[in-house]
Amino acid sequence: MPSLAGLFFWMNRKIENINKITITKPLKLDCGKTIKNFPLAYETYGKLNENKDNAILVFHALTGDQFVTGTNPVTNKEGWWVTAVGPGKAIDTDKYFVICANVIGGCMGSLGPKDTNPENNQPYGLDFPVITIKDMVRAQESLLEHLGIKKLLCATGGSMGGMQSHSAQNIALNELARQAIMADPVWDNGKYVSKDVQPKNGLAVARMVGHISYLSEKGMQEKFGRKLQEKADYEFSFNADFQVESYLRHQGYAFVERFDANSILYITRAMDYFDLSKQYKGGLVEAFKNQDTKFLVISFSSDWLYTTKENKDIVIALNASGADVSYSEIVTDKGHDSFLLNEPEFLKTLKGFIDSMYEKFKNEKRI
Amino acid sequence: MPSLAGLFFWMNRKIENINKITITKPLKLDCGKTIKNFPLAYETYGKLNENKDNAILVFHALTGDQFVTGTNPVTNKEGWWVTAVGPGKAIDTDKYFVICANVIGGCMGSLGPKDTNPENNQPYGLDFPVITIKDMVRAQESLLEHLGIKKLLCATGGSMGGMQSHSAQNIALNELARQAIMADPVWDNGKYVSKDVQPKNGLAVARMVGHISYLSEKGMQEKFGRKLQEKADYEFSFNADFQVESYLRHQGYAFVERFDANSILYITRAMDYFDLSKQYKGGLVEAFKNQDTKFLVISFSSDWLYTTKENKDIVIALNASGADVSYSEIVTDKGHDSFLLNEPEFLKTLKGFIDSMYEKFKNEKRI
Repeated sequence: MPSLAGLFFWMNRKIENINKITITKPLKLDCGKTIKNFPLAYETYGKLNENKDNAILVFHALTGDQFVTGTNPVTNKEGWWVTAVGPGKAIDTDKYFVICANVIGGCMGSLGPKDTNPENNQPYGLDFPVITIKDMVRAQESLLEHLGIKKLLCATGGSMGGMQSHSAQNIALNELARQAIMADPVWDNGKYVSKDVQPKNGLAVARMVGHISYLSEKGMQEKFGRKLQEKADYEFSFNADFQVESYLRHQGYAFVERFDANSILYITRAMDYFDLSKQYKGGLVEAFKNQDTKFLVISFSSDWLYTTKENKDIVIALNASGADVSYSEIVTDKGHDSFLLNEPEFLKTLKGFIDSMYEKFKNEKRI
Repeated sequence: MPSLAGLFFWMNRKIENINKITITKPLKLDCGKTIKNFPLAYETYGKLNENKDNAILVFHALTGDQFVTGTNPVTNKEGWWVTAVGPGKAIDTDKYFVICANVIGGCMGSLGPKDTNPENNQPYGLDFPVITIKDMVRAQESLLEHLGIKKLLCATGGSMGGMQSHSAQNIALNELARQAIMADPVWDNGKYVSKDVQPKNGLAVARMVGHISYLSEKGMQEKFGRKLQEKADYEFSFNADFQVESYLRHQGYAFVERFDANSILYITRAMDYFDLSKQYKGGLVEAFKNQDTKFLVISFSSDWLYTTKENKDIVIALNASGADVSYSEIVTDKGHDSFLLNEPEFLKTLKGFIDSMYEKFKNEKRI
């Protein structure tokens, strides 16, 4: 087992053996640059039926990946959405064919800043083009073509995977994470990759920002409060006296093993840039017009990153555009992370929606 | 005018000429260590009357200092509470004698980690003892003795200056700030001071954490939203495209000029450790018993750092202990920073309370 510093690169070698396709069709990015012949790593769960009408595309969150359920072969940990996806679960892999691809800009096998730039045979680093959420989605269209899927039963995801426009506070938190990475001299303007090092201090601090924002104030209070970490009293030092400090340090430094610092820069940037209302003259209402999609929007009452208010704004715009939309607010103290957790109301809502859509889909075909 | 990097040390030279006393009486700190013959820097505004019954002690916040109003001679900027303190203002310096001292552990003239350790003639750095809020207050008792004040009309302050016990989320945010500083290799285990450098990247990131927490989500949205910084469209780069990014970078790096990184470690630690209920067996209710003090607790509806709920818990405990307490929640979008801003309802409440206390105080003496 290599040292913490080397673990990331050791994991990278494992990534070489995972499922991926090479997308040969040139993809013109929003920034104006074009990429081609690039890898897109993906996983599938369940079986595509003969009619090819049971496919569900799952989008992952900022630091998620294609390993939705079962065991992630790179980290040897459970998939990030094991609570929701699997046989008999909300997204039932006995019935549905679930697809998830690593986003471009990421670091789990799809083209990202740690890959080699064919123009100079060096790792891209900051020469990697700035990508957008739309670019990520477009890259996945080619995967669906490759799998012979013309129509999805459903596309779903939480957090970045159910992306909306970012508020000033979200952008500020992302900028804080980026500044933490860029403040680390090891980052070296993104060029650390060729030296087989990671700006681990900066990346760990960036991850701590994330963990604070993923929990609600109340949830954090219930989980940690002012509990001390295996000690009877204050140590009068800067060691982790409180459990919440110990938790943050652990989460921060564990993250360094499995994620690339430059990918955090690129993916958070994509999130900040995403603004559906900006892409359409008439704003959100225009963006949602003429859809024959049925929408389900779910928010969590204690999520202060993707708030109920912002989700309701989307629902209002969907309604105003005449779209078919359901909305549910799940009351929970578990904050932004709720979508990853065993929240029965949430999972029941998700299951009910998908199963009824599938029934409707099949009946329509029959008629 | 020296470079940004040198500015902090240039300011330090100015600090040599500000008002301070040397406290000769040994002060036993909560951590067990004793300090003596240490400087305490302070300012006063207005005049102490003959009866010496018009003195108001103001406690400053984490990054505040003794320069409450007028011009801060070190930074050449306005005092931090110019909105509330001055002739005719809520804390009227035509009537009252206002005293404010820099907390020990700070960096504006009172004993702090950048000072010289008499034991080895080196800057303290991490050899500085870990101090508590109680230690800060005790140090100021000696100042009151020095000024010949036996009884204060009022003691007041916002944020750390009106300290309560910290929640897990507050501790987490403080830990994030500390980790950002400690991640900077220039910090060098606190020993940077002797090299005339500052861990400016780490300190700037720490300050950005603060600024995000000082504003409310709504206030930030109103102030910045998704507005771009002097450009028509996205730059597809990691430069500051959004105004909120530009604001954070500016605030972060400007802070480096005027504050010592180790002081942030020590003062945030003092805040985390403060837990009034822990010091008394019966908790908060016991802590507040047998006071002849009249309390005024003010919270701001959008402050997510020192929430209305937590302030109400204090009010409930004060009431349960039979104390005389007034409470007011000010409805505002301006978040934690509200106490520094021109919030008329807040300033009116503060003024009304202090003036009526003074009238009562005078009348009691007359009887």
